[in-house]
Amino acid sequence: MASIKVTFNPIGCEVKVTRRISILEAAIEVGVPLRAECGGNGICGKCRVIIHERNAANGIRDAERKHLSPRELVSGYRLACQTIPKRDIDILIPRETMIEERKILVYGVAKKTTLDPAVRKLRLKLNRPSLSDITPDFQRLQQTLLDSCKLDLSIDYTVLRELPDILREADWDVTVSVWGDERIVDVQPGDTTRELYGFAVDIGTSKVVGHLVDLNTGKTVGTGRMENPQVSYGADIITRIAFAMESETNRKTLKKVVLDGINSVLAQACAKAEVNSDQVYATVLVGNTAMHHLCLGIQAKFTGLSPYVPAVKSPLNISTAELGIKTNLHGIATFLPIIAGFVGADALADVIATEFHELEKTSMLVDIGTNTEVFVGNFEDMVTCSCASGPAFEGARIKHGMKAEKGAIESIQIKPGFEIEFRTIGNVRPRGLCGSAMIDLVSEMFKFRIIDSKGRLIPNESDPRLRKGDQQKEFVVAWADETSTKKDIVITQKDIGEIQLAKAAIFTGCSLLMKTENVVRKDLDHIFLAGTFGSYINPESAKILGLIPDVPTERIEFVGNTAIMGAKMALVSKKAVKTAEKLSREIRYLELATVPEFSRELTDAMFIPHKDLKKFPSVTKYIDKDSNT
Amino acid sequence: MASIKVTFNPIGCEVKVTRRISILEAAIEVGVPLRAECGGNGICGKCRVIIHERNAANGIRDAERKHLSPRELVSGYRLACQTIPKRDIDILIPRETMIEERKILVYGVAKKTTLDPAVRKLRLKLNRPSLSDITPDFQRLQQTLLDSCKLDLSIDYTVLRELPDILREADWDVTVSVWGDERIVDVQPGDTTRELYGFAVDIGTSKVVGHLVDLNTGKTVGTGRMENPQVSYGADIITRIAFAMESETNRKTLKKVVLDGINSVLAQACAKAEVNSDQVYATVLVGNTAMHHLCLGIQAKFTGLSPYVPAVKSPLNISTAELGIKTNLHGIATFLPIIAGFVGADALADVIATEFHELEKTSMLVDIGTNTEVFVGNFEDMVTCSCASGPAFEGARIKHGMKAEKGAIESIQIKPGFEIEFRTIGNVRPRGLCGSAMIDLVSEMFKFRIIDSKGRLIPNESDPRLRKGDQQKEFVVAWADETSTKKDIVITQKDIGEIQLAKAAIFTGCSLLMKTENVVRKDLDHIFLAGTFGSYINPESAKILGLIPDVPTERIEFVGNTAIMGAKMALVSKKAVKTAEKLSREIRYLELATVPEFSRELTDAMFIPHKDLKKFPSVTKYIDKDSNT
Repeated sequence: MASIKVTFNPIGCEVKVTRRISILEAAIEVGVPLRAECGGNGICGKCRVIIHERNAANGIRDAERKHLSPRELVSGYRLACQTIPKRDIDILIPRETMIEERKILVYGVAKKTTLDPAVRKLRLKLNRPSLSDITPDFQRLQQTLLDSCKLDLSIDYTVLRELPDILREADWDVTVSVWGDERIVDVQPGDTTRELYGFAVDIGTSKVVGHLVDLNTGKTVGTGRMENPQVSYGADIITRIAFAMESETNRKTLKKVVLDGINSVLAQACAKAEVNSDQVYATVLVGNTAMHHLCLGIQAKFTGLSPYVPAVKSPLNISTAELGIKTNLHGIATFLPIIAGFVGADALADVIATEFHELEKTSMLVDIGTNTEVFVGNFEDMVTCSCASGPAFEGARIKHGMKAEKGAIESIQIKPGFEIEFRTIGNVRPRGLCGSAMIDLVSEMFKFRIIDSKGRLIPNESDPRLRKGDQQKEFVVAWADETSTKKDIVITQKDIGEIQLAKAAIFTGCSLLMKTENVVRKDLDHIFLAGTFGSYINPESAKILGLIPDVPTERIEFVGNTAIMGAKMALVSKKAVKTAEKLSREIRYLELATVPEFSRELTDAMFIPHKDLKKFPSVTKYIDKDSNT
Repeated sequence: MASIKVTFNPIGCEVKVTRRISILEAAIEVGVPLRAECGGNGICGKCRVIIHERNAANGIRDAERKHLSPRELVSGYRLACQTIPKRDIDILIPRETMIEERKILVYGVAKKTTLDPAVRKLRLKLNRPSLSDITPDFQRLQQTLLDSCKLDLSIDYTVLRELPDILREADWDVTVSVWGDERIVDVQPGDTTRELYGFAVDIGTSKVVGHLVDLNTGKTVGTGRMENPQVSYGADIITRIAFAMESETNRKTLKKVVLDGINSVLAQACAKAEVNSDQVYATVLVGNTAMHHLCLGIQAKFTGLSPYVPAVKSPLNISTAELGIKTNLHGIATFLPIIAGFVGADALADVIATEFHELEKTSMLVDIGTNTEVFVGNFEDMVTCSCASGPAFEGARIKHGMKAEKGAIESIQIKPGFEIEFRTIGNVRPRGLCGSAMIDLVSEMFKFRIIDSKGRLIPNESDPRLRKGDQQKEFVVAWADETSTKKDIVITQKDIGEIQLAKAAIFTGCSLLMKTENVVRKDLDHIFLAGTFGSYINPESAKILGLIPDVPTERIEFVGNTAIMGAKMALVSKKAVKTAEKLSREIRYLELATVPEFSRELTDAMFIPHKDLKKFPSVTKYIDKDSNT
């Protein structure tokens, strides 16, 4: 099949497809995450897109007639999962189909941010030397740049070495790549100005995600992702730091494997976009402080020992060749600044991506992970802390917990009569519970008085799901005949305790930050929830659980993995990097360990939703209702 | 024998000797070139030094009583070659004993130049971090430097990587090495401020010479030298450039071998001074444009092809690790700027060392080599050119020519009756003639009418030295029984022609530059003669030969190898590097090939001293005298 170009608007993201796939699959391939809660089976009806050229795709299917009104069908609405492009096609994605992550990209990168990457290409034609004009090659180039672009530039030694040959091969007609309006980082023969790419990478503790961006347009042209290969040396940060502490060799190993991972992700993204990695000049990296140090080969030991001091917080620009990333030989990698030992560049990228630092009204940003970073503030002032929420929401230490992968239950509703409805990632039989499901489950169990405010399973003989397990009580979420494992999926009393601990840690962080900022619940204009959960956290469930402050649901927004978005904004905008640097200096860090009331706050927050119910007025209705029945 | 410290004043240069050697030998070891025309045999009486502590050395020897007056002996005068130190000793070198090279060092570095190297060390004590002060390590260091030294510095990535360990190992008491008041290039535990060294290197086409300098004192503490290992790939520049042009591999080979040579020279100098090369932070390199390109691995092809355009003329600062020089891992090498394709950093170093650019009165500087660089001008304005003088003065293409090495005749006088007196380097039986001897010889032959003004040997039956050789006439300089080769040392008719060609090329350069600057002979306040000749060029001979303009002899000064001196000045003074950069931009370059009268001038200059005798009034007396007799 000939290659077909699918363009997603208003993002402007393009992908070439060479086999028969749906528009939803094409969107996934290029990293445009559309809502598709049924996993692409035509069941949920969420992946609505608009196509103006009806003939560019297959005919309308039954599944589509079920979810779309005749009027919508006439207007060009289709379901992305049911639509197969037949030739080059433009897709318009309506707002409701975008998952929040993408919404931010649209408003962040494509609309507000002026395209102003650190690297740019300039085409120059130089005068040929002669016996009466023996200006050296570099000075000739420098003078031409000064005359035509008002730029006074230095040159990298490695570029200079090859300059004489390149200028003459090109017959003095070249394209110069300029970094930060300061340095010439490459000179190529002829006009290569159209080929200028950047690479944004989010180095997560468990996953490495990379997006390839065309720096001439700001469009994402390819993506890649893989497990962080450091996982073999420890699932969590502390184990990896301990491994790195053992020897110089170990430190080098951890650096090498994560760079291998980054290079794989780069290769994936370049292959998808058919871009030569030699045309990638700028790389922006984000990650937590441990990933930052381990990836750069900086001694990370002391970020793991009290008082948890990092080596450096300012942004670092390092030659990709020196670091070991296989972009253009003269490319530059920028690791965005960190804020503190447990608030890294990824958290700062969240701020950048949500434009939190520009908000007029005081808001909150919560990025949930093993360490959960919380920000409270607005454009004038911001404070952050890190909460040791632990890996429960990522599935660890929970009997049937798992990551937000295919087969994970991602949302749960309990119906009267102990009926349970759930949705699974990939729309397959479930294997376990991911974080968003745990939040739903515990809050639903609380609503239905299956557990009390201390999280204890309440004996109830009429509840068939409640039973005594091996050593403790447990509640059956899915019966063996519903699961792919052919075993019951349960939540145990201990699991509930772990979830309470995690949510209490997060809420304590929120609470102490609010105290520091002298902010009360009602002052919070907005709460952004970020993290690598499945597609969604139910704000209502999060409130009932007491994970976040009780604000009206419409003020809570799930924004997904904003770290990669922040990295991309830094990639396309020098100003965003400067903003990050400024924020890294200005955002205050609250070390929770130094707050005297920390442990009392934590104990109170162990209750569901909280020991002090005045903090959760919207939740009291469930308690009232329950006590009435 | 216990180590004895010998200090040479007023230079302030020290050397430790561990075996029984003379003060002259100690001086040679540490690179303080004293006059010693007999090679240290107590014959010439030139190596006069003053010792105030009589008992610190052996008793006065007969050879000394012959050359020193009783009054001088009482004042502490000794001959360096006859004096053996017995314990730590201070030597005062009187002006007359310094050879000119050293004079420049004394006035250039030790007196006028303020010690202000690009790299300096600062000792800092930092506050320890705590839970209430979690400033990252680098920011802590940065803030301390800002508070205590008003320096706002960045840090090299490679230094940052090790920073957390070093700070804690050192218990927050460290020495920071700072480059150009801009970047932290090293952090060492404790106080290492006393150990700060620099390395100056002159990469000659045939020799690599290096001087190790204590940057705390400006003293030269060790030297090294060896043949440029590139010689195996071609004795001359053109052959080497041709070799490098063949392939990328060849280019890399030439870079590698010269860097190996530089590293050997560094190791020699460090061993002599007992300095760890890890304490060497700054390296300054000079060399002609081809050496500059070949050493840096820059494509040099086009410097060898018309219009002879170099790749770059500005000074280059490159990490020694990247370049391949084995100093401190974070050291920086500065290649001084060049002026044009055939006027390199070595010539610019001549200007710096002689402080030519500060002269009020118009002068001339001539650095004689295969390419001879000439400068004319003063502090306001300067012009330079390169003369293709060829390798004759370095011994090539001359039947018994040789470099200024042991066994070379370096000066010649013809006495009436065809008696010849000569002096040999090392005071041994001669093997051949070096450049300074050729200049003496041809001018003496002209004075004694053995050759005419066209350089032709004049038939004279009464001259036993004049004879018909294999294919041409020749003149015997030394008879077989006087030589170490047991063969006659001769100069042939062809040799004389080669010398005429060389001198004509040089004089034409001088002459055309003077025209360009609108300067006549009488306007020249001073002529500096530089080059790697033996110890000396006889100014009188140079004038008679017509090598340089006819100015009063007292205005001509032989300054030796000023390139290494200029490199050392750049090493100890940031200002000197800035001056070099400014001069590199400002000194105008005259391409002789573009001057219409070039070939006529060259033809006229082939005569001895010149076709136009009005240019050499002081030489006409020999012609008159000869025509009278």
